[in-house]
Amino acid sequence: MAEASRTSEARRDAVFARWVIFSPARSRRPTDLKSHGPANPSPGPDDGAPKPSCPFCLGRESECAPEIFRVPPPDASPPWRIRVIENLFPALRREAAPPAPEDEEPVGAGECAVRGFGFHDVVIETPHHEVRLWDLDAEGVRDVLLAYARRVQQLAEHPAVKYVQVFKNQGASAGASMAHSHSQMLGTPFVPPSVTSRLNCMKEVFERSGKCSLCVVPSKDILVSETHNFSAFVPFAASYPFEIWIVPRQHSSYFHETDQDKVLDLAGLLKSMLHKLCKQLNDPPFNYMIHSAPFGLSSSCLPYTHWFLQIVPQLSVIGGFEMGSGCHINPVFPEDAAKILREIDGS
Amino acid sequence: MAEASRTSEARRDAVFARWVIFSPARSRRPTDLKSHGPANPSPGPDDGAPKPSCPFCLGRESECAPEIFRVPPPDASPPWRIRVIENLFPALRREAAPPAPEDEEPVGAGECAVRGFGFHDVVIETPHHEVRLWDLDAEGVRDVLLAYARRVQQLAEHPAVKYVQVFKNQGASAGASMAHSHSQMLGTPFVPPSVTSRLNCMKEVFERSGKCSLCVVPSKDILVSETHNFSAFVPFAASYPFEIWIVPRQHSSYFHETDQDKVLDLAGLLKSMLHKLCKQLNDPPFNYMIHSAPFGLSSSCLPYTHWFLQIVPQLSVIGGFEMGSGCHINPVFPEDAAKILREIDGS
Ligand SMILES: Nc1ncnc2c1ncn2[C@@H]1O[C@H](COP(=O)(O)OP(=O)(O)O[C@H]2O[C@H](CO)[C@@H](O)[C@H](O)[C@H]2O)[C@@H](O)[C@H]1O
Ligand SMILES: Nc1ncnc2c1ncn2[C@@H]1O[C@H](COP(=O)(O)OP(=O)(O)O[C@H]2O[C@H](CO)[C@@H](O)[C@H](O)[C@H]2O)[C@@H](O)[C@H]1O
Repeated sequence: MAEASRTSEARRDAVFARWVIFSPARSRRPTDLKSHGPANPSPGPDDGAPKPSCPFCLGRESECAPEIFRVPPPDASPPWRIRVIENLFPALRREAAPPAPEDEEPVGAGECAVRGFGFHDVVIETPHHEVRLWDLDAEGVRDVLLAYARRVQQLAEHPAVKYVQVFKNQGASAGASMAHSHSQMLGTPFVPPSVTSRLNCMKEVFERSGKCSLCVVPSKDILVSETHNFSAFVPFAASYPFEIWIVPRQHSSYFHETDQDKVLDLAGLLKSMLHKLCKQLNDPPFNYMIHSAPFGLSSSCLPYTHWFLQIVPQLSVIGGFEMGSGCHINPVFPEDAAKILREIDGS
Repeated sequence: MAEASRTSEARRDAVFARWVIFSPARSRRPTDLKSHGPANPSPGPDDGAPKPSCPFCLGRESECAPEIFRVPPPDASPPWRIRVIENLFPALRREAAPPAPEDEEPVGAGECAVRGFGFHDVVIETPHHEVRLWDLDAEGVRDVLLAYARRVQQLAEHPAVKYVQVFKNQGASAGASMAHSHSQMLGTPFVPPSVTSRLNCMKEVFERSGKCSLCVVPSKDILVSETHNFSAFVPFAASYPFEIWIVPRQHSSYFHETDQDKVLDLAGLLKSMLHKLCKQLNDPPFNYMIHSAPFGLSSSCLPYTHWFLQIVPQLSVIGGFEMGSGCHINPVFPEDAAKILREIDGS
């Protein structure tokens, strides 16, 4: 029988209150089912020309849904570096009537339905098909993050938008349908379930300990890197192998309120973490998500809401245990993942 | 721009309190990234012989981890039809010391760690490599369900086991590593996160309405099929396209307490639903999960805990929006999925 170097352990985190099972021996189980093909199929030889079928490439702007803004602005002489556009196949529609208060009344026992009002935008991170986010220099990554922040700020001003989920899908197994480097954001007319449970958990921790869960300094053995303003670490109860959280060291509820200097610092760290994952895990598909606070939160909630960015490389498939229980099985202990990631050059 | 036949809508369910966005237009978006290969690769020609590498096949019992029980029992003359065995690569280990009460104290702010004690078992549903669960007759499926119930009952008697998650992974995209038809169960020393949030939600509905969320009769338009004891329907706020719930019509907290007659009824309905999914969706990978109550629940909780079986065909990949927000985007309205499933022959 396979012997694990560490035996298994279950951990619960202080942000989502989720249990995770760490089981290194699991990674040695055999399979007689084919795993997925290369998750990030190479988008083809890089000849610098726009791909015939890619609407996100320079020169194909007319094939896209309407632009919201671009960087630099249209009247500037160099071509655009970043475009924020509407999603052509939006999950929620800006033309729908915003939900009226009575729409939120339950239909049936506790069930509830609202019209599909909301905003679904795409951030095209580069005009070039072959360039990945972490190929940009730190200033380039900063500008992408600033574009997120600017758009979130615009959406925050709409009275019916309760939350904006910023996220990036890179590679087919991470859900991406488009290869050209991009991110998305969805402004929702409700507070999504994971946001509610995060706030509930952080509130409980705060009420019991007087501390914000994310102001606690991460222990050295899970830390990957630190800058003046941010810590990057593998969370104590990481649901996924090599998952990384980038957290502002100073308490801060809203991502979009981060000032320009700090965003440059964040950009450098994000770029370095993506480099590390790319080197260590051979260019894995991944997602990242920005976890911020819902809009219009009462000021009593601010002391325990602390935004962060979560990076999740997609290395394994979710099975029935995770779907049913909400508890993940992670074959890699955070301390082991962090040690490996610390040792890799991130530049 | 693509026009949807229905416009999008967001719904929240009364069991998990999860928001889901229904957006039929989403299914028309293009992709330039390869999707996964066939999710359930055919395990090879059916020559009836055990596969050389499959330890779950008849005659290869010695390659498996220890047996817990078999059906029929070992002294009976026909060979086994079902075996419940230990998982050779368990996520939780029965040899680990069960957690002592003080292990559940938080380490750090709200974080918590316990030794990896627990039970991880495999149910081999047939001795034959090529037979799928829904190829068995109703009595055969009943015996598999009864094997689950018997093993859950055994685990319920262990004082440190708080919950048992029964689940099945079928096909590589549903997480399966073994092609031979099987299910699994994990007995955990903690109540998993989704179970906690399900109980919290159902409690709230009960306190507000005096009703158990799952005793409410499903409306005709989401119903797929009904027997004397069970309803099969697409839930009002299904997270996944063509997701089906099979729910006992009479209030009942624990799956493993279902009597034999009812289990036969359930078996017939489960077989029929799997047939329908297989026909409509071309043999999709899928998971099913049994959602039951945690052990040792106080009697005041029993009125709002109601077990059910959830079947989820795996048709799409989860992206960053779902991972970050906990809110799924489902391109198929439950009413539309139910109509299609009603019309397909399930025998
Ligand atoms: N010409 C054009 N103009 C403007 N927009 C265009 C466009 N052509 C395509 N688009 C949009 O561009 C987006 C590209 O997004 P991604 O590749 O990150 O994943 P997608 O949203 O398809 O789905 C993944 O992410 C979502 C959300 O997490 C999951 O629901 C899903 O299962 C997963 O595959 C799509 O949403 C598409 O609608
Ligand atoms: N000779 C033998 N004797 C006894 N047992 C043997 C054995 N050989 C293999 N096994 C066990 O058989 C099981 C087969 O299970 P599945 O195919 O349903 O998925 P698996 O558990 O691998 O992972 C899927 O399900 C889990 C839980 O949902 C997810 O964590 C994971 O990512 C997903 O791929 C494995 O757990 C394996 O350890």
